[in-house]
Amino acid sequence: MKPKVLIIMGSDSDLPVMEETAKVLADFNIPCSMTVASAHRTPQRTASVIRDAEKKGVEVIIGAAGMAAHLPGVIASHTVLPVIGVPLDASSLNGMDALLSIVQMPPGIPVATVSIGKAGAKNAAILAAQILARKDPQLTQKLLDHRKKMAKEVEEKARKVEKKR
Amino acid sequence: MKPKVLIIMGSDSDLPVMEETAKVLADFNIPCSMTVASAHRTPQRTASVIRDAEKKGVEVIIGAAGMAAHLPGVIASHTVLPVIGVPLDASSLNGMDALLSIVQMPPGIPVATVSIGKAGAKNAAILAAQILARKDPQLTQKLLDHRKKMAKEVEEKARKVEKKR
Amino acid sequence: MKPKVLIIMGSDSDLPVMEETAKVLADFNIPCSMTVASAHRTPQRTASVIRDAEKKGVEVIIGAAGMAAHLPGVIASHTVLPVIGVPLDASSLNGMDALLSIVQMPPGIPVATVSIGKAGAKNAAILAAQILARKDPQLTQKLLDHRKKMAKEVEEKARKVEKKR
Amino acid sequence: MKPKVLIIMGSDSDLPVMEETAKVLADFNIPCSMTVASAHRTPQRTASVIRDAEKKGVEVIIGAAGMAAHLPGVIASHTVLPVIGVPLDASSLNGMDALLSIVQMPPGIPVATVSIGKAGAKNAAILAAQILARKDPQLTQKLLDHRKKMAKEVEEKARKVEKKR
Amino acid sequence: MKPKVLIIMGSDSDLPVMEETAKVLADFNIPCSMTVASAHRTPQRTASVIRDAEKKGVEVIIGAAGMAAHLPGVIASHTVLPVIGVPLDASSLNGMDALLSIVQMPPGIPVATVSIGKAGAKNAAILAAQILARKDPQLTQKLLDHRKKMAKEVEEKARKVEKKR
Amino acid sequence: MKPKVLIIMGSDSDLPVMEETAKVLADFNIPCSMTVASAHRTPQRTASVIRDAEKKGVEVIIGAAGMAAHLPGVIASHTVLPVIGVPLDASSLNGMDALLSIVQMPPGIPVATVSIGKAGAKNAAILAAQILARKDPQLTQKLLDHRKKMAKEVEEKARKVEKKR
Amino acid sequence: MKPKVLIIMGSDSDLPVMEETAKVLADFNIPCSMTVASAHRTPQRTASVIRDAEKKGVEVIIGAAGMAAHLPGVIASHTVLPVIGVPLDASSLNGMDALLSIVQMPPGIPVATVSIGKAGAKNAAILAAQILARKDPQLTQKLLDHRKKMAKEVEEKARKVEKKR
Amino acid sequence: MKPKVLIIMGSDSDLPVMEETAKVLADFNIPCSMTVASAHRTPQRTASVIRDAEKKGVEVIIGAAGMAAHLPGVIASHTVLPVIGVPLDASSLNGMDALLSIVQMPPGIPVATVSIGKAGAKNAAILAAQILARKDPQLTQKLLDHRKKMAKEVEEKARKVEKKR
Repeated sequence: MKPKVLIIMGSDSDLPVMEETAKVLADFNIPCSMTVASAHRTPQRTASVIRDAEKKGVEVIIGAAGMAAHLPGVIASHTVLPVIGVPLDASSLNGMDALLSIVQMPPGIPVATVSIGKAGAKNAAILAAQILARKDPQLTQKLLDHRKKMAKEVEEKARKVEKKR
Repeated sequence: MKPKVLIIMGSDSDLPVMEETAKVLADFNIPCSMTVASAHRTPQRTASVIRDAEKKGVEVIIGAAGMAAHLPGVIASHTVLPVIGVPLDASSLNGMDALLSIVQMPPGIPVATVSIGKAGAKNAAILAAQILARKDPQLTQKLLDHRKKMAKEVEEKARKVEKKR
Repeated sequence: MKPKVLIIMGSDSDLPVMEETAKVLADFNIPCSMTVASAHRTPQRTASVIRDAEKKGVEVIIGAAGMAAHLPGVIASHTVLPVIGVPLDASSLNGMDALLSIVQMPPGIPVATVSIGKAGAKNAAILAAQILARKDPQLTQKLLDHRKKMAKEVEEKARKVEKKR
Repeated sequence: MKPKVLIIMGSDSDLPVMEETAKVLADFNIPCSMTVASAHRTPQRTASVIRDAEKKGVEVIIGAAGMAAHLPGVIASHTVLPVIGVPLDASSLNGMDALLSIVQMPPGIPVATVSIGKAGAKNAAILAAQILARKDPQLTQKLLDHRKKMAKEVEEKARKVEKKR
Repeated sequence: MKPKVLIIMGSDSDLPVMEETAKVLADFNIPCSMTVASAHRTPQRTASVIRDAEKKGVEVIIGAAGMAAHLPGVIASHTVLPVIGVPLDASSLNGMDALLSIVQMPPGIPVATVSIGKAGAKNAAILAAQILARKDPQLTQKLLDHRKKMAKEVEEKARKVEKKR
Repeated sequence: MKPKVLIIMGSDSDLPVMEETAKVLADFNIPCSMTVASAHRTPQRTASVIRDAEKKGVEVIIGAAGMAAHLPGVIASHTVLPVIGVPLDASSLNGMDALLSIVQMPPGIPVATVSIGKAGAKNAAILAAQILARKDPQLTQKLLDHRKKMAKEVEEKARKVEKKR
Repeated sequence: MKPKVLIIMGSDSDLPVMEETAKVLADFNIPCSMTVASAHRTPQRTASVIRDAEKKGVEVIIGAAGMAAHLPGVIASHTVLPVIGVPLDASSLNGMDALLSIVQMPPGIPVATVSIGKAGAKNAAILAAQILARKDPQLTQKLLDHRKKMAKEVEEKARKVEKKR
Repeated sequence: MKPKVLIIMGSDSDLPVMEETAKVLADFNIPCSMTVASAHRTPQRTASVIRDAEKKGVEVIIGAAGMAAHLPGVIASHTVLPVIGVPLDASSLNGMDALLSIVQMPPGIPVATVSIGKAGAKNAAILAAQILARKDPQLTQKLLDHRKKMAKEVEEKARKVEKKR
C-alpha cells in the first residue's frame, strides 16, 4: 500500500521513540514509511527523500530530531505538505533545545510541533490522522472511536483508583 | 461563504495578533470566522462554539491564548478536527508559559503548536492552508506561489543589503 | 463518611504521588474520595465528576497532572469551590511545564498551586485542611498539633546532627 | 467591619499591583486590611502582624512579594490560616524568582500560589472568596454571579470580534 | 573549642552534602557546630539558634536548604553576622528553585550565595575561612597553602593527562 | 583614608549600578576605591589591581560584571581575600547568564554572590560591612542601626498603606 | 578586493546588528560581502550563495538568525569552511531560542557560536580574523594591536571612574 | 610531531568527554596535546601553558569546562589564537551554566562555542580541522571525505530503518 505518511528521523537512535508513531498510524490503518535523513549530514538526501515522497503520494511528513533539531524546519523548507515536528530529548538540556529549534519557526514556514519525546511521537500520528481525515470520513470515525476507547480506559482506571481507597 | 477555519482566541485583547492569521487566510482565499471563548470563563461556550463549527463544515480550528494557555488543548478535547495552537506572550514570562501549556499535551490529544506571537499567528494560517490543501489542489498551487513570492522578497532584500556595502 | 475533599488525577500513573495527599488527609481525619479524570480525554466525565462532588458536599477539589497540566484549571472552570493544583514531574521538563500550566491561570479563575511532586501532594492535603478549618475549629487544633509534631521532629533531627559532630 | 482577609506586601512599591486584590475583595463585599511587612527587614513585625490578624478574626492571609519572595512562606510559618502567595515581577528575572520562591514550599507548610503579577493579585482575592465561602453561602452565590458576569463579558467581546470580520 | 562557624541545614537529609562544609572547616582548624532548623517548621527555633550562636561567639553562619530555600534569608533577617547560603538540589528543578530563593534577596539583607550542592558546600567553608581570616593572619596563610595544594593537584592531574596521550 | 573595599567593574557602563555600592559603603563610613578592569581585555591589569589592593590593605573585593561574567571568579583566582560578585543585567538574557557565570564556581574558589543588578549592588556593600565588622565592633553597631532604620521605614510605609484603605 | 568573509543574515531586519560585524571586519581590513538568505524560505539560494562564495575564495562564513535559527547550521551542512553563528534576539524568548538552535549542533557539523546580538556580531568578526590569521601573520599583528587598544580603553575608563570618587 | 591543537580541560574528570576531541583530531591526523589547567586554581599555569603552546606553534586552543566555565574565556584573554569552548554538563544545571559562561562573552574577546558535552567535544575537533584547513588543502579534502563518510552512514542507517518496517 502506498504510504500516506513519511516519518523522517535524524538518527537511527531515535527509532525506539518514533516506533510509537508507526504503531499508532498502524492502529489507524494509515500506511507509512520510515527513514533516516539528517538536515546537516545529508542535506541533499533530505531534499530528495521529500521529493520522492511527494511523488509517491505522501500527504503528511513527520520529522523527529533532538538537540538543534533543524530537521522538521528543513523538511518544511522543501515542501508545502503539512510537516509535523517531534522534539526529542537527546541532550543534557531535556529536549528544551529541540523544542525551541522546532517550534519557533519564523513566519512563512510552519512546523506543527507536538510534545517532547514519546508523548509527542504518539500525538504526531494522531495529528497526521486528523489531517488525512479531511478527505477520508472513515478516518474521522476511527478518530472518534479512538477517543471513546481512551475515555473508557480513563473510566476503568478511575474505577480501580476509586476502589483502592 | 462557509468558513473552513475557525479562529478562537481567549480574549479580545489577542485580536491585534490574531488578525495576522485572518489576513493570511484571506490571502489564500480561505473563508474563516473568528470568535472569543475562554477555556476557563466560558467552558460551555467553548464546547458549543466547536460543535457549531463542526456542523457548519469548519475543518481546522486555531486556538490562541496566553499564560496557562489551556484553550487549544480544551478545544482539542471537544473535537477530532486538527487543532492549531498559537502561544501568546501575555505575561511576564515572555510566552514560555503559554508555549509549554500548549505544546506539552499528553498522549492522545495533539495540538499542532506554532511559534509564539505574531510569527505563530501567520504560520497558523499557512499550516491551516497546508491541511486544507489535502483535498484542494488549487490551495497547493497557492502555497507554492506563496513560497515563490517569499523567495523573491528574500532575493530583493538580498540585493538591497548587497548594494549597501 | 461523606467526602469533604475530592482528589482528581489525570492518570492512574499519578497514584503513587497522590496517595501522599490521601495519607495526610487521613491523618487529619478528613474523608476524601479519589478518582481519575482527564481534562482532554474525558472532558464530560471531568465536568460530571465535579457536579457530583458538589452535590455530595465536597468542599475542596485537588487536581493533579503533569505535562500541559490543564486538569486543575479545567476543574476550576466548572466549580466555584476552591481548587488546589499539584504539578507533577511527568515529562523531560522536570515539572516546569506542569507548574506553569497550573499556576499561570488568567484573571478570574484561580488555582491554588502547590509545589511540584510529592512535596506538593502533601501540602495540598494540609492546605485543604486549612481551608476546611474555616468552619471546623477542631481541624485548626489538629493543624496546630501537626505543626508542633513537625517542630519536634526537626528538634530530634537537630539533636542527632549535633551529636554527630 | 472586621477584616476577613489581610493583605501583606513586602514593600509599598507593590501597592499598585495589590490594589487589584483589594478591589476584587471589595466587589465581593469582603472586608480586608492591607499592610506592609518584610520577611527580612521586619521579621518580628511580620510575626506580630499575623498574631494580631488572627486575634481580630482574619481568616485568610495574602502575601505578595518579588525577588527571593520569602514573605508568603514566612507568613505561613507563623499561622495555620490558609496563606495565598502572589509572586511579583520585581527583578530582571520576570517574576520567575518570586514564583519559585513562593510555590516550591517544602512539605509541611503550604502556600496557595497564584499567577505572577496583576492576574495573580486578582485571583488571590477570588481564591480568598472561595475559601471564605466555605461557611458563607451568600459568597458562593456571589462567586456564581461573578462567573456569569465574566461569561457575559466574554460573549460580548465575542460579538464584537465576530462583527469585525 | 568555641565554634566560630554555625552550619544550619533545613533537614537532616541535607547532612551528606553539608558534611563537606564541616570537613573543609576542619581542614582549616576552624571549630564549627552543626544543627537542623527549619525556616518554616520551626521559625522560633531558627531565631533562638541564631541568638545562642551570637552569644557563643559564632562569627559566620552557613545556611543550606533546597526547594523554596528561605532558610539562609530568614537567618540573615535575625542577625547582622555574614550569612552564607548553600542552595541544594532537592526537587525536580535541579536546584534552580533553591538558587533563586537564596541569591535574589531584596536590598538590605544580603546572603552570600555559593554554588548549588557539594561544590557550594565546600566553597561555603572556604568563604567562611576567608571572612574569619580578616582578623586571623594564620588563616590567611592556611588559605594560601590550600591554594598551593590545589594548584599542585592540578599540575599532577595535568601530568597524568599529558602522559596518557 | 586607606580603602578597605575595592570595587572592580568590568566596564564603565556599569557605574550607575555600582555607585549604589559606593553610596552604601559611604553610609557605613567604609573607605572604598573603585576601578575598571576586564577579566578578558586586561587580564594583567586585573591581577595587578588586586595585588596593589592587597598591599594597600584592602580587605574585601567586590567584582561586578554582566554576560559571561568571569570577573569576580578571576579576581578570586588571584587573592584569598573574600570576593563578592554582583551579576549585572547586561544582555538579552536578563542577567541569568551573569548570575550562573558568577555563582556556579567550582569547588576551591568561592565567590560570595548577591542578587542581580541594583539590589545586589546595595547588598554587596552591606555584606562587605558584615565581613569587616568581624574586627570592628563599631561596624556591627552601625549594621544594627541600619537594620532598625530599615524596619522603621517599613513601618512608615505600612502606616501609609494602612491609611490608604 | 575579493571577499574573505561572507555574512549571511536570515532577514534584512538583522542588518542593524550585523553591520557591527562588517564594521569590525573593515577595521581589520578584511574584505567581506553581505547578503540575505533564508534557510527555510530560500533553501536553494542558501546553497548556491555558499557554492559561489567558495568559488570566489571566501574562507569563513558568518550566519546570523533569530528564533529557530537554522541558518548557521544549514550553511554548515553545505560547506566545510568554518561557519560562525550569531544568535539574534528576535522573538519574545530573548534570543534563547536562537542560541540553542545554533549552538546545540549534533556531532559532525559544528557551528562556532558567539554571544547573542551585537556583542556576538562584533565577536564574529574578531573570530573570523583569528581564523584568517592562521595564514596571514599581519592579521595576527592587527589582532594584537586591537587587544592593546582595548586594554588602553579599559585603562582610560578606569581613570575616569577612579577620579569620580 | 608538533601539536597544532592544544586541548585544555578544567579537571581530569573531564577526560572521558574530551578524549572524543582527541580521537577525532587523530582521525584527521592533526597532532594535538592535552593538559589540565584551571582558570581559578592555577591562573598562572593557564597563562604559561598558553604562552608555551604559542611558541611551539599551536594554532587552535580548545578549552573545556563545566559549571561557571571561565576556562575558555580566560584562555582567550591570553591569546589571539582562535579558542574553541566546550561546555560540560558538570553540575545539577545540565550544562546550561557552562554554556552561558562560555558563549556569552562580552564584545572584544570571542570564544567559538560548540554544543554541550560529547557532541561538542567531537565538533570542537572538526571545527579545529576546518580552521587549520585554511592553510592545508589536504585537510579540506579530509573534511570532505569525512562528510561523505557521515552521509554514507546515514544512508546505511536509513536502509536498516526502512527494512524494519
